[in-house]
Formats: sequence, C-alpha cells, structure tokens
Amino acid sequence: MSKKIATRMQGISTFYVMELLQRAKQLEHQGRDIIHMEVGEPDFPTPPEIVQAGINNIQTGQVKYTPAAGLPELKQKIARYYQEHYHVEVSPQRIFITPGASGAFLLALGVSIDPGEEILLTDPCYPCNSNFIKLFGGIPSFVPVSEETDYQLTAELIEHHWSENCRGALLASPSNPTGTLISENTLEAVVDVVNNKGACFFSDEIYHGLVYGKQATTALQFSDEVFVINSFSKYFGMTGWRVGWLVVPEVFIDPVEKLAQNIFISTPTHSQFAALAAFNKTNLAELAKRNKEFSTRRDFLYTKLQQIGFKIKTKPEGAFYIYADCSDITQDSFQFAKNLLEQQGVAITPGKDFGHNNANTHVRFAYTTSLNRLEEGLVRLERFINEK
Amino acid sequence: MSKKIATRMQGISTFYVMELLQRAKQLEHQGRDIIHMEVGEPDFPTPPEIVQAGINNIQTGQVKYTPAAGLPELKQKIARYYQEHYHVEVSPQRIFITPGASGAFLLALGVSIDPGEEILLTDPCYPCNSNFIKLFGGIPSFVPVSEETDYQLTAELIEHHWSENCRGALLASPSNPTGTLISENTLEAVVDVVNNKGACFFSDEIYHGLVYGKQATTALQFSDEVFVINSFSKYFGMTGWRVGWLVVPEVFIDPVEKLAQNIFISTPTHSQFAALAAFNKTNLAELAKRNKEFSTRRDFLYTKLQQIGFKIKTKPEGAFYIYADCSDITQDSFQFAKNLLEQQGVAITPGKDFGHNNANTHVRFAYTTSLNRLEEGLVRLERFINEK
Repeated sequence: MSKKIATRMQGISTFYVMELLQRAKQLEHQGRDIIHMEVGEPDFPTPPEIVQAGINNIQTGQVKYTPAAGLPELKQKIARYYQEHYHVEVSPQRIFITPGASGAFLLALGVSIDPGEEILLTDPCYPCNSNFIKLFGGIPSFVPVSEETDYQLTAELIEHHWSENCRGALLASPSNPTGTLISENTLEAVVDVVNNKGACFFSDEIYHGLVYGKQATTALQFSDEVFVINSFSKYFGMTGWRVGWLVVPEVFIDPVEKLAQNIFISTPTHSQFAALAAFNKTNLAELAKRNKEFSTRRDFLYTKLQQIGFKIKTKPEGAFYIYADCSDITQDSFQFAKNLLEQQGVAITPGKDFGHNNANTHVRFAYTTSLNRLEEGLVRLERFINEK
Repeated sequence: MSKKIATRMQGISTFYVMELLQRAKQLEHQGRDIIHMEVGEPDFPTPPEIVQAGINNIQTGQVKYTPAAGLPELKQKIARYYQEHYHVEVSPQRIFITPGASGAFLLALGVSIDPGEEILLTDPCYPCNSNFIKLFGGIPSFVPVSEETDYQLTAELIEHHWSENCRGALLASPSNPTGTLISENTLEAVVDVVNNKGACFFSDEIYHGLVYGKQATTALQFSDEVFVINSFSKYFGMTGWRVGWLVVPEVFIDPVEKLAQNIFISTPTHSQFAALAAFNKTNLAELAKRNKEFSTRRDFLYTKLQQIGFKIKTKPEGAFYIYADCSDITQDSFQFAKNLLEQQGVAITPGKDFGHNNANTHVRFAYTTSLNRLEEGLVRLERFINEK
C-alpha cells in the first residue's frame, strides 16, 4: 500500500516564479548575468545596530527559549512604537512575537477559522495568505479588484461578496503585488463593516514603513477588535532572522498564547534580542535613508515602464513592487517572463502567482536591486519588447 | 456580535506546568529560592563553536532567506551524520531544515493527515505532539503504555489499537516524559506493521544523542518510508535558535517543499549557519562531556528518588527526564506538585501534562540543573514528604 498525501495539499499551490528562479540559477551557473526583479526581499543588509544587538545576545551563549508570547521588552517596544508612530494605544498583552509574519498568520488563522468557512481576499494578492486559510480547511473567497479601488477591498465590495459562510476579510496595505495603499477612510469603513458582522478582520501590515509620499494607516487606529500582522523582515531589513508580530483582539489572547506554546515553543531568541534595537532613533534614521533609495527606484521604474509600453493605472506608493499591465505587449505574461529570462536574463514574476484576475496580462516588478541594475534591466526589457 | 474562536482550540490544552511556572516566578520575585526540576531545556549554554559560527554569519549582515528546504550544506552535513553515526544512507533531498522540531511536526502532519483521521500515540506522551495532530483536524488515539513495554508502542499494541480511521503512529525515543528508549527489534517491528498498512510512521528523535549507556536507534535504519523529526535544540544545545530537521519519504518531498515555502518561507538563516558547526569533531567532544554530566545526574536522581519513596519501574536511558510513580506518597500528583512548590520551592511537572494513564500518580523530574541543585532539591523533597 502506498502512503496518501493530505487532501489540503491539492489546494496549496507552488509559486510559478520558483520555476523561473531555478532556471535563473541554472543560467547564472552557466555564467549568464541575471538581473533579479522578482525577489521579494530588500537588497540592503540588516542594519548594523540590529546586527550588533543580535551578536551581543549570542555571545552570552544563553540563547534559551523565551516565553511563547515573546520577550516582554520587545512587546513593550512595539506598543510604544504604535503610540509614537500611529498615536494608538495597544496593550503589550495583545502583542505576540512570532517567527516572521508567517508565524503571525498561522496563529491568527489557526485560532479563528473553522473548516468550510470563507475569508474574503483581494485578487490579486500574495499567494501565501490564501494558502494559510486553506491549511486550516478554510476557503479563500477572492474579490477581483482593480485600479478603481487601488486594488484594495472596500466596504461595498465586502458587502457585495459576503456569503453566509464568510467569517472574515484579509487585506494587505501596502499590497503585494500592487504596492498600493488603502486610504484611511476606506480602511475605517472596511473595519467597521467586518466588525459589525461579528467577523474577523486581518490586516497584513508587513510593508508598513516602506511608503513613499503617503503614510500607511494601521487598522488599530479604528478598532481594538482586529488582527494585525506585521514583521521585522521588510522595513527593518531582517528577512532571514524570522521575527514578526501579531496584534490580536483581547478575546483571542488566551487561545493565541496556547497555540503559540504548542506550535512554536518560542520565536528565535537572538532575533528577538536583535529586534530590540530596531526602534532606536539612529536605526530609524538609517531606514529613512534606505526608503529614499527605494523611492528613487520606484520613480525610475514607474516612469520608464510606462515609456516602454506597460500600463500602470495606480501609482504604487509602498512596498517595493510595481504591478504592471502588459496587455499591449503580450496576452501571456508567464510565457513573456520565461522568454525574457531566457533571451535577456531578466527575472520578473508572472501575474498568475497572484491569482486569476487578469493575471495573464500582468507582471510584477520588484525594485529590490540597485538603480544601476534596474537601469540595465530596463534596457534589456525594452530591447526584448522591440525584438519580439 | 462577538467573534468566534475556532473549534479546534477547544481540543488544544494548555500545559498545567505553566500554572506552576508562573507561581514559581512570583515566588522568585518575592525572593524565594526555587529549584527548577520542571524545565525541558538543557542548562548548558550553546557550545562555543556553534556560537562563533552564528556570529560569523550575522557579521556579514547578509541574514537573508535561504531556500525553503534549508541550506544545502546543512542538509548534506545531516546526511553525512546519518551515514557516520547510524550507518544509514539518507538522500539530502529527503531532509528539510525546519524552525525547530515544532516546524518539522507542522510539515510532517500538515502534508499527511486529513480531518477525522486518527494517529496512534503513547499515553503518557509530550502534549504538543497530539496538539499538532488536532491542529489539522486529526484525532490522537492514545494507547496506554507502561513499564512493560518501556512506555513505548509495540507492533502488538499497534495491531490491537488500530481502527479503520487510523492513518499512522507517532512514537518518541528517547521518550518525554519517561526517558525510555525503544529497542531496535521493537522499533523495526513497529515500522513494518505501520508501513504494511500503507500508513505513516512518525519517529520523534529529538532526544537522540542524549543517551546514557544504550544507543538510540533511528527508524531510518529500517525504512526510507518514515517521517523522522529531529532538532538541534536538546543534544546540540540550541533551544532558542529554533532549528531542527525533518526526513520524509520520497513521495512527500514535493508536498513538504510546497508547504514549507508557504508557512515558513525559511528557517532562521543565522541559526542554520550556526548549526553547520554542530557536527564538528571538537563540538561533538564537548557534547560528550555534557552527556557524562547528564548521566551522573540521572544516576543520582534515579537512586535517590527510589530511596525516598518513588517507584521507577524502568531505568530511563535517555533525554533528561525521570517519570516517577508517586502512588505510595500521593494520589493527586498535581496538588502534590503545587504544595511542593509552595512549601519547599521545588518545581516539578505533574503527570497530567502527559495524558490520562495513571497521570495522577506520576510526576516528571527534569535533570536540567546542576548536581548541587538537584541534591538540594532532593533534600527539600524528602523533607516535604516526611512532613506531609
């Protein structure tokens, strides 16, 4: 008899970009120069203050388990950050330190969704978010969104798509793949409509901080009754450290604590100690410099992509992504991405990694590489389009 | 309307010892000296070579995501360890680096159990193991075990307790809480009987290495068609680093890769680089010294506990636990543990944290503190029993 793979795995998709990544590696191995505009990871190293705080902890040799909910000092620092940065009071008790945003999603969805229940999401959206829902037997219910709502949910869209099995809505601002933000008013209305249904609102705020021009709004400004997922990975430059956080409504404190004890024991200790330095003024100043660089790259790409034939209907104001409509160039963005890699050595992410809504006429560009490399990438991209 | 907590959380229990831990902290805060014999974490610091390897990685600032399956070099080192230490060939492709054994359990059970399916486990066993099963809607089916089988499953017990909903069996050797090992013959028979049913065998080997006198046997010696969960936490002294590994049957490689991509992105990078030093000869020599110390503690506790009235029917030969029958002293081991803490400042773990099978007449002692402290703990314990 052969062993059976769990049914849930049928619904959990692999990332199409992985195929491209593997091919990119092969090509690099053969000596080809590849420009990476597919990577969802900042190119900057972890800032020096954070590095030093991590080393200081490890040098003690006492890298022991912390409480499942996280280091109390780090929870307090995050609470203070909410106060100073967003003018919102969040009790440290409602804050859980997690192994990255991934851990925060596991906890938030694990304590709130029963099998068969639906959660509303945008299409396009980051694929892991819907896979966490499926992991627990939930059903992602996709709402096609467009530039008309900045690729975000609205209260009207939620009302329109709500079904009797719906238990919540999940929204990311800034969004991956679109880089767009939800406006303050829209977010408030969204939080209200979900709360009024007694359902759960999940606010993915992992790209907060990485905003250019506009300020990002936290769902916590409008309600204590929301789940907020955040992370030290992107803005704070700590991807490989695996440390993030989750804010929960009060009634979920005990279940989340219990689940965290069982499925993580604790978040990496040295990463938590390192993160204690993340909110230092000097570190925030360093991050502001990086933001300026990201902003310059965004401006360059935004202008240049449109010049060579892509349509970008809403200016992205956060994260490090541009979601571009390539319908004037191709009707098959996955094949386009594959050919672009083969012929010009430029790696981008096909729209179908983010859903079904016009996915074949969209691609995602990440500006997680230097301006020089982006410039070279765009020269190659233009050449590729002209030669087609 | 109020928000609903997911049904699965009703079945996931908190640890009773947490109540004792909180009280122990309160008492310490008041200035009381508490002897901790409840802690499932080695008291030794992370060994210096591992510490240095971790620091070397962090100093580069390049603490970036690794492949979801883990650093290829680390997978190769683990494969080599299986070859040198157990004389077993394991393809690195079947090895996944995980955020601790917790991450390994999430992956192994996530890809293999459907809701409503049963997995056989021993009672007593480590509570998280059954909670991982419940997390995915599975049903832990407990087999009461005793000293007669060294508190382990046997092929006969599995046959006897097998039901039509059974999809597998999970076994830990050395066991937490009993510290007992399964014999080579019994393990081989267990692996065979589960494989013959086309079901999954999960071998929890996280205390391998921590063995005193006997050698631990890996299920991989008998079959490639098993899941093996292991960790750098206990034997290698890396608890807070959160790095472990999972070996999977070949047919599960793709699903596990896909699930790991989605729920972790990757295991902490600096911890993986640190773990590269774990198998160095000089480091293994350092660990051997620690094992000698654990062995001395085990001998002391094993002798002394019996002298003061506990029954220990099978000599524990691994991990750092002794599971002692206190039926001649009390019929309520939880109350006993609470009173012992209050009156003598000694913290131990009540049997009910590990199941229902004679739980009220058992307690677990951990020897994760120095011999001096254990001696003082036993003086207090004896005094407490005599004063009762």
